[in-house]
Order: sequence, then C-alpha cells, then structure tokens
Amino acid sequence: MNKLELWERYKKYLCVAENLGLQLDISRMMFDEDFLERMSGPIAEALEAMDRLEKGAIANIDEHRMVGHYWLRAPELAPTPEIKVDIEQTIASVKAFAADVHRGTISPERGDGFYVLLLIGIGGSTLGPQFVADALGNPDDPMIIRFIDNTDPDGIDRVLGELDEALAQTLTVVTSKSGRTIETRNAMLEVEHAYRQAGLSFPKHAVAITCEGTPLHKKATEEKWLGTFPMWDWIGGRTSVTSAVGLLPAALQGIDIDALLAGARDCDAVTRSRDWRQNPAALLALMWYCAGDGRGTRDMVILPYCDRLALFGKYLQQLVMESLGKKLDREGQVVHQGFTVYGNKGSTDQHAYMQQLTDGPDNFFVTFVDVRRKRNGQSIPVEEDVTTADYLTGFRLGTRAALTESGRKSVTITLDELDPRALGVLIALFERAVSLYAELINVNAYHQPGVEAGKKAAGQLLNLQHKILGHLRANLGSTFTIDEIALGVNAPGDIESVRDVVEHIQAHDDHAVTCTSVGDPPESRYGMQGMNNVPESRAGDVPPGAQA
Amino acid sequence: MNKLELWERYKKYLCVAENLGLQLDISRMMFDEDFLERMSGPIAEALEAMDRLEKGAIANIDEHRMVGHYWLRAPELAPTPEIKVDIEQTIASVKAFAADVHRGTISPERGDGFYVLLLIGIGGSTLGPQFVADALGNPDDPMIIRFIDNTDPDGIDRVLGELDEALAQTLTVVTSKSGRTIETRNAMLEVEHAYRQAGLSFPKHAVAITCEGTPLHKKATEEKWLGTFPMWDWIGGRTSVTSAVGLLPAALQGIDIDALLAGARDCDAVTRSRDWRQNPAALLALMWYCAGDGRGTRDMVILPYCDRLALFGKYLQQLVMESLGKKLDREGQVVHQGFTVYGNKGSTDQHAYMQQLTDGPDNFFVTFVDVRRKRNGQSIPVEEDVTTADYLTGFRLGTRAALTESGRKSVTITLDELDPRALGVLIALFERAVSLYAELINVNAYHQPGVEAGKKAAGQLLNLQHKILGHLRANLGSTFTIDEIALGVNAPGDIESVRDVVEHIQAHDDHAVTCTSVGDPPESRYGMQGMNNVPESRAGDVPPGAQA
Repeated sequence: MNKLELWERYKKYLCVAENLGLQLDISRMMFDEDFLERMSGPIAEALEAMDRLEKGAIANIDEHRMVGHYWLRAPELAPTPEIKVDIEQTIASVKAFAADVHRGTISPERGDGFYVLLLIGIGGSTLGPQFVADALGNPDDPMIIRFIDNTDPDGIDRVLGELDEALAQTLTVVTSKSGRTIETRNAMLEVEHAYRQAGLSFPKHAVAITCEGTPLHKKATEEKWLGTFPMWDWIGGRTSVTSAVGLLPAALQGIDIDALLAGARDCDAVTRSRDWRQNPAALLALMWYCAGDGRGTRDMVILPYCDRLALFGKYLQQLVMESLGKKLDREGQVVHQGFTVYGNKGSTDQHAYMQQLTDGPDNFFVTFVDVRRKRNGQSIPVEEDVTTADYLTGFRLGTRAALTESGRKSVTITLDELDPRALGVLIALFERAVSLYAELINVNAYHQPGVEAGKKAAGQLLNLQHKILGHLRANLGSTFTIDEIALGVNAPGDIESVRDVVEHIQAHDDHAVTCTSVGDPPESRYGMQGMNNVPESRAGDVPPGAQA
Repeated sequence: MNKLELWERYKKYLCVAENLGLQLDISRMMFDEDFLERMSGPIAEALEAMDRLEKGAIANIDEHRMVGHYWLRAPELAPTPEIKVDIEQTIASVKAFAADVHRGTISPERGDGFYVLLLIGIGGSTLGPQFVADALGNPDDPMIIRFIDNTDPDGIDRVLGELDEALAQTLTVVTSKSGRTIETRNAMLEVEHAYRQAGLSFPKHAVAITCEGTPLHKKATEEKWLGTFPMWDWIGGRTSVTSAVGLLPAALQGIDIDALLAGARDCDAVTRSRDWRQNPAALLALMWYCAGDGRGTRDMVILPYCDRLALFGKYLQQLVMESLGKKLDREGQVVHQGFTVYGNKGSTDQHAYMQQLTDGPDNFFVTFVDVRRKRNGQSIPVEEDVTTADYLTGFRLGTRAALTESGRKSVTITLDELDPRALGVLIALFERAVSLYAELINVNAYHQPGVEAGKKAAGQLLNLQHKILGHLRANLGSTFTIDEIALGVNAPGDIESVRDVVEHIQAHDDHAVTCTSVGDPPESRYGMQGMNNVPESRAGDVPPGAQA
C-alpha cells in the first residue's frame, strides 16, 4: 500500500471525539473492511450487554455482583437512589477532607500540617493512584506522595527511612477493598509500629478506604482514625481509580478530581454510542480482536510518547490481563483467554526493545499514545527550527512508519493535552474497551478466580511454618536434618516445602532458628536454641490489630 | 508428578554456586532428561564460542567489533595490554572522581558541594544505572540521583522543576557512547540552558561519558567540563553497566563498585565452566531454549520478590530483547527471533496479572528471583510467629506451586542477600545467559540493525518539517490546507506525514504556525503570521553545542 493509499485509509477510519480531545487512528492495523462487517453483529451485541451492565445487571455472575464503576462519574445512572447518594456523598467528603488537610483544619499531632501522603495498598489499590500521581503530579503539589505496595520488609524500611523525621507530617492512607489484603495489613502494621516508635499516634495520622464492616473498617472506626472512605462490592479493584481509592490520594495531591471525573463521564457518554464506527472504545476492542484473532495471540505494547504516561502500561497490565486472562468462558468452556500487556514510554523504549519489535517475531501490536501539546510555553531550539518536542513527534512517527514498513500493526491514540480531564478520558476509554472486548470473547471480566490457588498455597506454607517452629520449639537445643523435620511435622511427602520454609526462617533473626553444616558432604542441621536466646520482643508480642 | 517426585527432581537439577551466594532451580521447567542430552552438543559449542569471544574474536561480525564487557571486571583477560590499562585506569579515575566529589575537592560554583546527581542518557546509558541505583540506593546516600532519559520537554521541565534551587548543587552526567544520541543531546541542551538561566556555568557542573572523538567528547573537552570518562566500541550500550556508564553514577551514589565488579567477575568465572550442568548461565540459556522451543514462543516473566529489584524486568527487556530480537541469523537466513520480557515484582504483580498467568494462555515462563535475607535486624510479628518476610516467602512459593499445578513453567534464582556483589553476580549471569542463548540460536547478539529504520524515518519527518516551515515562512500571512502545503513542499504523495507535522507544530508556540477552521464542514487552514509575531528568541538562536 503506497503512502496515498495509507492516507485514504487513515481518513476513512479516523475516529475523532472532539469534545474528548481524543483521536483514534486504527488505519495501521491493516484489517480489511470484511473484518468490520463480520464483527458488526458481535460488537452491537457487546454494546447492548454494556447497556444492561450499566443499568445494574449482575454482570459479574460468579460473584453475583453488579459492575458499577461507570456510575462513579455519573451517579444519576446508578440503579438505586442509595447508590447514587453514596457516590455523591463520597465525592463530597473526599473533597472536603482534602481541603481540610490543605488548610490545616485536619493536622498532625506535631508540626503545622501534613505534607507527605503515604499510600499503603496493592494491586488495584495502588496501580491506579500511582498512575494518576505520576501522570499529573508536579513539584509544587501540596503533598508529596509515596507508596508501600508489598510485604517486603526491606522495601518498607527504605520508604520509612526516606520519610524519617517527616513521618510526623505524613498522612497514611490504607486502602483495601476487602479490608483483609495481607500485604496491605502487614505494611500497615509495620508503619503503625514506626509511628509508635517515633512517639506518634498512628490513628491521628491514618485514613482508611475500605468496604463497610471489614476488619480494616472496624480497626479504623474503633481507633478513631482521621477518616474512613467507602468502597463497594460493585467496584472491582482494577476499576476503582474513579472511586475514593483514586480520588482521595489525587485530591490530597492537589489534582482537580472534578475534571478527572468529568473526563471519564464524557468518555463514557461517547463510548456508549451504538454507532460503533464512531465509538473509540468499540473500535479499540475490535482492533484487539483483530490483532489477536480473538485469542490474544499478539501482545499489546503500550508506547506513550510522554514521560508522564510511563506507568500507563503497568496500569493496563492489571486492567487488561486480570480482566481478560480467564480459563473458562461464561458457558464454562475451557478457553485460556488472555492478552499480554507491556511497555513503558517512547522514545525511551526505542532504545530498549524496538529492535525486537522491528525485526523479531510478529507477536504484538503497538498502541501509541501521543499528547499533542508537549510543553506549556516556549522551547529553546536544539537545532535551527527544531525543538525537543519536534524530535519526540518525529521519533514516534518514524517508529510507526518503520513498523508499518515491516508489516507490524499499530493504533495511535492522540490526546490534545495531558490534564486531569484527559486522564479521565484515557482511563474510561480503556475500561470500556476491556468490557466490550470481554463481551466479544464471552468471558467474565470482573472476577479473578485464578489468584486463589496461589493464596491458598501460601497459606499452607505458613501453616507448615507454624508446625516447624512448634516442633523445633518443643525440641529446644536439638538439631535436625530437613528429612527429620519433615517427619517431625508429619509432612514426609512434602520435603521440598519443609526445606523452603526452614531455609527461609534460618536466614532471619526473628525465629531464632540456626543452621549448622556437618559431615562431608555436609548435611545441614537446623535447630532452635534455648529460650534465653529468643529475643524478648518475640514472645507472643502480637501488636494490636494484627489479627484484623 | 507428586511432591516427592518433584523434590527428587529439585535435588537432581539444583545448581548451587556457593561462592556467588547463588542457587538456580530449574526443576519446575519440566524438561526431560532427553532434552538436556540433545542440547549437550550445542551448549558445549556455545561455551567454546564464548571462549573465543572473550579472547577477542570479532564476535559482532556485522559491525566488525570485539565484544568485551567481560573484560571490564577482569582487565587481565583483555586481548591487548592497551585495553587492560584503559579499563584499569578508568576504574581508578571513577573512584578518584567520586571520592573528590564526596570530600568536596570537586565542588560546584556555589554552595559547599554536589549532593544531586542528574544523569542524562537513554537506553543502555540509563537502564543499567537506573536498575543499580534503585537496587542499591539508600536514604543516606551521599548523592540523590535523578534521570532524564527522553526528549520530552514536559518530562525535562518536571525534573528541572523538582531540582529547582538544588540545580546549583547538581552534578550532571551526560552519557552517550556515540556522543550523538539525539534524545541525550536534546536533554543536555535543555539542562545546559537551565543552568545558564540560573546564572550557573554548565561546564562547571558537567561530566561526560562517551567514546573518544565523538561530538560529546569534543564539547566536553573544549568547554573544560569537570571530567570525561571513556566508552569503547567493544562495549554495547546494553552491556555497559560495569563500564564507566554504570560505575560512575554508582560510585557517586556511594555504592561499593569494587564489590559490584567482584561479583560480576566471580560470576563470569563460574559461568565459563564447560561443565554446563553446574553452570547457571548455561542452564538458564538452556531453559530459555526449552521454554520457547528455540524460537522465543513463550514470554519471559521476571518476578523478583524484592522491591529493590523492581526494575530488573525493565533492564532485562533491553538486554534480552535488543540482543535476541533479530530478523536474520548469522548465515543471513530470515528467522525473526526474539524473546519477550516483562515483569515488575512480587508479590505486587500477583495482584495485577497473575490471574492471567494462572488461567490464561500457556505463553510464558516465570523467572522468580528470591533474596533470602529480607531484612537486616528484627521484625515485628504481623501474626503470632509470622513476619512480613515470612509472608513474602509464602506468597512466592505459593505462586510457584499454583503455576506448577496448572502446568506452567518457572525457574527460581535465589540470592543469599542483595548487596553490590550480588547485583554484580545477577548482571553477569544474565549477560552470559544472553550470549550463550544467542549462540544456541545462531544470531548476532551484539548489533541492533532494526532500530535504524525508525531513526531514518524520523529524520525524514524533520526534513519535511524544515520544508513546511520554509514554505510557510516564504508565504507569511497566507493560510493553506494540508493538501496545498503538501503540494507546496513537493510532497503530494505523503499528505499524511505533512498533516502529522503540521498538526504537531501548530499545537506549540515555537514555530508561530496557527490553525483556522473555515467552511462547513470545516476545513483547517494553516499559516505563519508576520515576523513581528515570531518570538525574538526564536530567530536563529541556536545555543552553543546545538550542532554537536
């Protein structure tokens, strides 16, 4: 296809949503018109299914839940007056709370105000807020934001070490929909301990975002934290960024959440359109279907040419892969669906893996994201008549051309500028594209049954750890081989797990288990020393809330 | 396979490199013994090829270059005395420079010392340093490190805005092997401009890392920058982290680069072993071959259970994908090889895409990385007898078990602890695994011909921009449609590019091009206003060095 034919194709398929400041170019996906014809029935059905979902159908059938993230930015569409009021009141209370923090009405025990925000959460509770914070944050924001999103003690130590004295001016937001997410609970307990060590009251620096009645909700209420904000069972973690989960940290950081919500709401309105040829979410879903033959056979490479969108790919990894990576379709057939997502930013990634995209296997398509206005104000020239921004555009277009040249597919999303409203548009666009694509391939996009097996296996390992510690404690001073310990805890069939657990605990000081090597070849022996060697603070010192 | 059989398999295949503090478990890759037998010839040949490469063979045949990153940590192995001396002197001068900065012998124009390090580079010039800085950085480091790794003006503004007054205490390191990397040059010019605006001399705050004789080298020498450190043509950007590219920022940050180098050197020694069943790099390469059938058909998911290794996947994206993503093999046959890499960290990613890994397509294998010692010092219990670290281990093992259960493959790399030495080990391990795997699939791992097409196309677009600006400037005050401009610049066949360029430039203030819409339906017209509207500072004001 020559350049003029490509231009005709570009004009034919360009989708412009003027009031969103958004354009979607699908011309370089190289589908033919037959494909669109063939998909016109399925996409029309998908749009109808979305209509039912938005009206409150139990779209998450396995968990018997409604799916309501679209109501968060248009409460008037909520299926009950109670939900409408809940949403409206939450937005109002988020804004009031942030304003109170900014003006110092809500302030810490010591010092004049909160200027650091520490967000504790994982998965949907942090990926959205991290994405928003990095996309819209500025050096002069009223609060600096930091995250703890794991149960890695060294990682927690590093964040706390960085805060150091500023802990007294740190507002900690603990986010967990279920209120029982282990990583979040663990990090919260460590952070609570750090406040205590600094002579500070944790409740006077803490806020919770969780569903009513959860262990976290109970703890926050009983201890009279500075605030609690709701989550609801009709919101999934991965689509919670326009709920309090995303709005509270954004508002505290000084981001215009009304604009963010308006962008998402307006994008929802546009992408509800049954005229799918002018509906960018529907076209995106169709392009995904086209790229991956409806089975995700090509990876989705996310390449925003904008430093602020560097976390978009990471955010979409969850939204797309957790929603679409499913073993069973809605009829219970084994389908092993999925759609792999990766990518950081251009032109940086051109210097990383573009070599493979150009020359390697044809196993991907690129989603370029361009932000048209790349700087407010004037630029210096880096060559005569050329700015940094000109080069950024040149590299994006050059890469797109090179991919087309080597027969590789791409779509391009263009945003007029990157502001809270545009970010709301982008978030809503992909949320709906995921929902529509899930309809096309007939999977439930709103549950995540596959993560249970790993959690259950982790629980079994911790049970095994308890048994092993009990066995060694009952035999203080004696040492055992791995095989002997496995016998001792009645797990002779699971020696590998016994070894994994023992090797882990002997590498730390906490459980007073030591290792000695004897013999040739050496055979390791493990044991617990006498109680006088067990650190005082370890003996049953479970902090308050630890059983939450 | 029951648990006892898995345990036998584990013991049979476990590769322990005690002096490296490293273990590699390949048991869960579920290859059979036949596979290893079949590969014993090819891997032996690959190890021999590596021997030739390390002795100075022209392993990068297309560019007629030696491949010498292994000499960086064992200069005595370099093929000529000159190279040996170059390496040794560079390491010595890096350490001396860092020491001088730390003790204030090298200091900025104003204030008492440098305490911020701003690294400007892209691709191999930043991915390694970013990975090392994040893996080993601590709040009490002597210098804070920041990066500019793109030609995004807004991204540059944000970093400079964050530095603000601290710019006077900022040491800027500009890294580009070729000394002509556009993104790096652009960012340097913007940063140079910022110093000038602040009334500061850029040369008195700047250091260059580049090959001798490059434009960057010339500029740094002529302007008498604080220092220049060498790169050599026998080092690729993606394997430059143990050259000055990685060592200088690490040393400035206060990281023990001798330990880093020692770790890499010792790992090289172990992984040179022809006894490939005890060679972790050889086993890794074989596992990649096994997982992807020698064609990269499965993605490599990198899951370190360690916050400090969160950038490892991003670092490996370049090392692996740029090295292995090749159209032609060394005989010139079209092979479209490659190996897709993604991943961040566990257990965080369990809450993102683990759903797809467990239930979705079998199109990946996981590389778990465990750091055995997860905290220095004692932990609070989060439940009785359970710490955050215990949970981190439990989640990793639980996920591994769940993947095995659903027939998905994984390898596990265990490091005793994460310190500079261990990081050197990890870097060298994967560098060699990539080299060995490239031998197995017969591709040149050391060039990147595929990135040229995109750069060339970008250059054409900037040429087109020059022509368009020239055309509009010659017709000041007149306005044109896209079609008319395309005709005017003699590019009637490339209207799409003309439109792309015009839409880009009219969105910025720099080129004084404006857009008006007329008619119904509206047709956009573009033009340049009279010179009195062109900002003064734009008229040929090319800063010094811009043509470098």
